[in-house]
Amino acid sequence: MNAPGPTEPPHRLRPLRALPDASGVEIIDQRHLPHALRMATLRTAADATLAIADMAVRGAPLIGATAAFGVALQAQHEARDAALQAATAALQAARPTAVNLAWALQRMQRRWLALPVADRAAACWAEALAVAEEDIAVNAAIGRNGLPLLQALAARRSAAGGGPLQVLTHCNAGWLATVGWGTATAPIYMAHALGMKLHVWVDETRPRNQGASLTAWELGQAGVPHTVVADNAGGHLMQHRQVDLVIVGADRVTARGDVCNKIGTYLKALAARDNGIPFYVAMPTSTLDLSLTDGLAEIPIEERSGREVTHLSGRSASGALVEVQVTPDGTAAANPAFDVTPARLVTGLITERGLVPAQEAALRRLMDPRP
Amino acid sequence: MNAPGPTEPPHRLRPLRALPDASGVEIIDQRHLPHALRMATLRTAADATLAIADMAVRGAPLIGATAAFGVALQAQHEARDAALQAATAALQAARPTAVNLAWALQRMQRRWLALPVADRAAACWAEALAVAEEDIAVNAAIGRNGLPLLQALAARRSAAGGGPLQVLTHCNAGWLATVGWGTATAPIYMAHALGMKLHVWVDETRPRNQGASLTAWELGQAGVPHTVVADNAGGHLMQHRQVDLVIVGADRVTARGDVCNKIGTYLKALAARDNGIPFYVAMPTSTLDLSLTDGLAEIPIEERSGREVTHLSGRSASGALVEVQVTPDGTAAANPAFDVTPARLVTGLITERGLVPAQEAALRRLMDPRP
Repeated sequence: MNAPGPTEPPHRLRPLRALPDASGVEIIDQRHLPHALRMATLRTAADATLAIADMAVRGAPLIGATAAFGVALQAQHEARDAALQAATAALQAARPTAVNLAWALQRMQRRWLALPVADRAAACWAEALAVAEEDIAVNAAIGRNGLPLLQALAARRSAAGGGPLQVLTHCNAGWLATVGWGTATAPIYMAHALGMKLHVWVDETRPRNQGASLTAWELGQAGVPHTVVADNAGGHLMQHRQVDLVIVGADRVTARGDVCNKIGTYLKALAARDNGIPFYVAMPTSTLDLSLTDGLAEIPIEERSGREVTHLSGRSASGALVEVQVTPDGTAAANPAFDVTPARLVTGLITERGLVPAQEAALRRLMDPRP
Repeated sequence: MNAPGPTEPPHRLRPLRALPDASGVEIIDQRHLPHALRMATLRTAADATLAIADMAVRGAPLIGATAAFGVALQAQHEARDAALQAATAALQAARPTAVNLAWALQRMQRRWLALPVADRAAACWAEALAVAEEDIAVNAAIGRNGLPLLQALAARRSAAGGGPLQVLTHCNAGWLATVGWGTATAPIYMAHALGMKLHVWVDETRPRNQGASLTAWELGQAGVPHTVVADNAGGHLMQHRQVDLVIVGADRVTARGDVCNKIGTYLKALAARDNGIPFYVAMPTSTLDLSLTDGLAEIPIEERSGREVTHLSGRSASGALVEVQVTPDGTAAANPAFDVTPARLVTGLITERGLVPAQEAALRRLMDPRP
């Protein structure tokens, strides 16, 4: 982890920030981006559960941190086992796929279970703060570990006739999906800060358009050159050598390296493989679920409302946020929110502990490095 | 072509219908579907050019038929070489990718070049009528030739535990893309009319949503069970054995069987291959371009306005058609309208002359069957 890199995230805002008096957590309500930057305050575990379920906060690492604060907020109000367990169960049920949610809740539980009720409020708050602070540090390490990959590919692109390094990403694995830096975006932001010429193809990421609305917004805020494309376009761009590498985030990665991420990721991994383009997954090790092996068979895939497919919100010419229906009345729609990219299609996993192949032995070694 | 099948298309409407007095052509202005069924009348070659360029009509076969009538309308007004050549050039330039446009214009030119000016108006009108009528017959033959594939797969699905045959299609290769029947939909409509239990996964097909707005509409009109999904979902559905076959249309197919079709088709072909699912292309032989071999290198890919990606139209709660912006202000967007699926990923081509592998020798034999 000696690679250079700026030490500060490219953004002053935080998607989640604890209030100094431990009475709540301020979040960016991401449902209004990119058209409005609205903050909201979570004051109870129920608020946190709702924010996760309704996707006011989203992104595996940010879901984990929000859940940690959900438990901490519960502990401020009522810290007995039953209350904390109920809050934990509700938070766990808010979304099924990202394992960081379970990871954060287990970490919180290890903390409070060992303590008398009277000590839990303070300890849980401190632990949630630690989860959030560590997330920023972890993502910075992911950035440092991914940066040399970008530098090597940029050198190759430059030797082959130049132009900026061309990166494609899917969904939002940016700072809005974490507490700071982002996962997939961390090496991008560091490379940009170091003056590398790069350009990001941003998949719009239907049906919720996290690419078009969130990734485009945060790259724009940071001044990183980018172009939004329909999810359908990535294969064509790769066929025409307009992509040097793909970097995405992850919601859960199994022991053998199967990667569960936003629906459509698998299609981009197939296209990358078909065109000999590296496909990297940037993720904190808290996204690893070593209890699972076969991602396709074992990871629960959230099925969201078909209305996210048939209807869409945006800003009208008058400036109002308007929801419009695209399909004929009564059309059925299915909406699986994630898919699984088999390990065989993954070039490597960029974690805070280093770059690792998507292979079981390597992943188990990464998590338990005793000789 | 002895397979059974209903002889009438499943729709009374025609996307294009010549007025009996040869003064114009009535079209469905498809830009208003699925929210409004509006007809428009083309009275000049310029009207036809605009209807093609603005996608009031779209779909390779329908573009070809509309272009034929464009020439015929020009011939009603002024039939000298210069006028017909100018109209032909403008029509040809309306859209670059679908080869049926050039095919229809060449067919019209062969007709009028051989005639004195005075005979051209009547002859061109008759020729355009023939192009349109033949399109219906050709698509019916595609339907009959594709039907046995569906029947065989339905039998396999039934033997494996039942449920309806699961078909996935991309974009609209339905009757709205032709003069009648559709290409990819022709075998589907015939199977449905024969009582086969089937269900169609309809890719919404960003950025213009032809699946969500057109395919869903026409399948709904015909009572064919269907579900709209984001383009991102197809790979996941295939991984989970929820797709028995993929059928798409084509805008141009090269001598070696490379298939140019709506952007995103290539990604579905990759997923079909990765999951051992048949991937068929339904097309009239007028979509074949034997002058080209390497589809990736040689087929011109239309780059449309980025506004089709950043903005989207739909019906608001009040019933008004509203355009909304999804991306942040000033976001750049790229919009390649087609991609090329290499022949190696295509299980077979369903044409009016029969089912043929995506291989050069077979395709050349198909077009020149002399022993």
